[in-house]
Amino acid sequence: MENLVMLPGPTNVSDRVMNAMLTRMINHRSDDFRALYKSIIEKTQMVFQTMNDIVVLSSSGTGAVEASVVNLIRRKDKVVIPVNGEFGTRLADLIDSWGGETIRVNSPYGQNPDYSEFEEAFDKNKDIKALYAVYNETSTGTTLRYLDKLSQLCSERGVFFVVDAVSILGGDELPVDKWNVDICVTTSQKALAAPPGVSPISISARAKKYMLENPPPTQYFNLKRYFKYFEANFETPFTPALPLFNAYNEALALVLEEGLDKRIERHKACAEAFYAGLSSMGFSPFARDNARSNLVIAVNYRQGMNDKTFRDLLSQQFRVLVAGGFGNLKGKVFRIGSMGEVNKYHVMRTLSSIASVMNILGLEVNSEYNSIALKRLHGIV
Amino acid sequence: MENLVMLPGPTNVSDRVMNAMLTRMINHRSDDFRALYKSIIEKTQMVFQTMNDIVVLSSSGTGAVEASVVNLIRRKDKVVIPVNGEFGTRLADLIDSWGGETIRVNSPYGQNPDYSEFEEAFDKNKDIKALYAVYNETSTGTTLRYLDKLSQLCSERGVFFVVDAVSILGGDELPVDKWNVDICVTTSQKALAAPPGVSPISISARAKKYMLENPPPTQYFNLKRYFKYFEANFETPFTPALPLFNAYNEALALVLEEGLDKRIERHKACAEAFYAGLSSMGFSPFARDNARSNLVIAVNYRQGMNDKTFRDLLSQQFRVLVAGGFGNLKGKVFRIGSMGEVNKYHVMRTLSSIASVMNILGLEVNSEYNSIALKRLHGIV
Repeated sequence: MENLVMLPGPTNVSDRVMNAMLTRMINHRSDDFRALYKSIIEKTQMVFQTMNDIVVLSSSGTGAVEASVVNLIRRKDKVVIPVNGEFGTRLADLIDSWGGETIRVNSPYGQNPDYSEFEEAFDKNKDIKALYAVYNETSTGTTLRYLDKLSQLCSERGVFFVVDAVSILGGDELPVDKWNVDICVTTSQKALAAPPGVSPISISARAKKYMLENPPPTQYFNLKRYFKYFEANFETPFTPALPLFNAYNEALALVLEEGLDKRIERHKACAEAFYAGLSSMGFSPFARDNARSNLVIAVNYRQGMNDKTFRDLLSQQFRVLVAGGFGNLKGKVFRIGSMGEVNKYHVMRTLSSIASVMNILGLEVNSEYNSIALKRLHGIV
Repeated sequence: MENLVMLPGPTNVSDRVMNAMLTRMINHRSDDFRALYKSIIEKTQMVFQTMNDIVVLSSSGTGAVEASVVNLIRRKDKVVIPVNGEFGTRLADLIDSWGGETIRVNSPYGQNPDYSEFEEAFDKNKDIKALYAVYNETSTGTTLRYLDKLSQLCSERGVFFVVDAVSILGGDELPVDKWNVDICVTTSQKALAAPPGVSPISISARAKKYMLENPPPTQYFNLKRYFKYFEANFETPFTPALPLFNAYNEALALVLEEGLDKRIERHKACAEAFYAGLSSMGFSPFARDNARSNLVIAVNYRQGMNDKTFRDLLSQQFRVLVAGGFGNLKGKVFRIGSMGEVNKYHVMRTLSSIASVMNILGLEVNSEYNSIALKRLHGIV
């Protein structure tokens, strides 16, 4: 039996998308590729809800996040950044090691900082260049629920607004143009349900202007080169990962066929079913109520449970893959990627497999989780 | 009918390798991935003929070449580099923009510099840190035929020896350990005949020591992180492009099943058949005799031929894909990628399709090319 991939990326990938990888090799300097790339760009714009320029990198999300830093941040540039998890920390560390100066708005893992702290940070520092925000913190299962307000703040203060939407875009609200996001980064293997290896970025006109005038001293993530090649020939400057471009193209088609609103609704319903079902089994969500992610469900282990034993049983006896904790949270939580293709059957099979594993481990589970979860999934396929 | 992909990457990819991409998603933090990655590393070591550490990046060859620069070169480091084509120029430019100082040993396109010029460069500059060499210059179809001597020179002078073997490794001689190559870079979609998107690098013990002590200010190509993750868990620090890892793994298996020596022989015979056949059709090779590549066959257009017309006919009427000139050579040459899976049938079909196109264009072609090419292909499947 195949794995049910309930990881926060990679996720389950539909056959239509997998099979697209078998498309035969083409010349990446040909009309065949140009047509493919144009189609990818157009669909990506629809999914990002933007008219901004799009670049598709052949790299993981980390590479694309790095591109958002090396193309915009220069020595001593001040950057405000919320930090409440491993990915926020990683991004802030990258900005600092690259020569920028972060002003970190910290909060405990599982919580978001108070919005007022950002206003304070902006009031105290008059020459801030950019605000970088991890929209969905994969390590803790939290979502920054006031991105619209941060957007407003950035517009008022005239600073660049950069959103790391790696583990969320396509599964929750993110209207890039409406929220004036200057750089928005995501990747293929999360809510877009393609295989890992390609990562799209949107870039606003003013961010692009800056990048054209201030290219970084490197090549692979140098966005000026991507703009140049696209404008001249609808090509990428370096050989693209062709099978993954074909798969990503098909995955975008699926997103648009379903419709973004319906997709976001589906993610919300599945997340609610997971939170409710797991709570009834005695697992408390790691994140505070107002910060809970609809895509990464992180819950605390019940007393005495061992991460490896639990996840090995789940994987080896039920072929259900969930993730452990990341960094500081290793051994303390497990995380379910409820994203991409996630549907009613995925939720119910995951929950019942977890209940069975609890049973095997000799831990009591209230069987009400079934009806509780099903109620949340009403109307969701 | 499918395309015959005679490009200098991507190339024709066998069904076995294509189908490997359909392997279902796994957790890249699991034993399943660790087993895959270990197997990839071991096979890569065999193909590189090295016991050095191997890192596999989810990027194109350009990304891996960039990794060889940002992990080894620091401000004001002097680097000797032969430059006789677009890729040599690009690499030298990257080293300079990254802060290094190149000492360029130039020669006209299609020729290699005299070996003595390297000795001179080393004599004139006492504090050289590294020699970077593009082994096979894809833009001109030339191969640097004295890499073994450069290796000797580097060993004598105690400088790092870095080889960009992107369009050649697996198709011509490159015993990494015997030639003391400190960093050797290649990519999946050239002589190894996998789809594009992953790029392996080998790193010697002394280069690794330097990298561990001097990590770059970036993340995605920071090799220290790759060493750390591999040594701790046989994992990559960032999500790998899983389908391409599976395909690359299968492609390596094919290389080892054939045997490296036999594979190199095959590339040589096919190249000779191309050069001989094309010459008899009136196309002169772009590269000098002693510099000709066995993997990229670049020939000058005959008088009055138009690049676009010729390649469009070849592609649209015969489904044979060849590449045009690159950079300065655009419109002046066409290039055949004779690499990876290339066999007798590929060579003969390419030549006869070219002859037919010449005929359609009203240009005379001596039909002896068939027997001339076949003689060179004797014994090659």
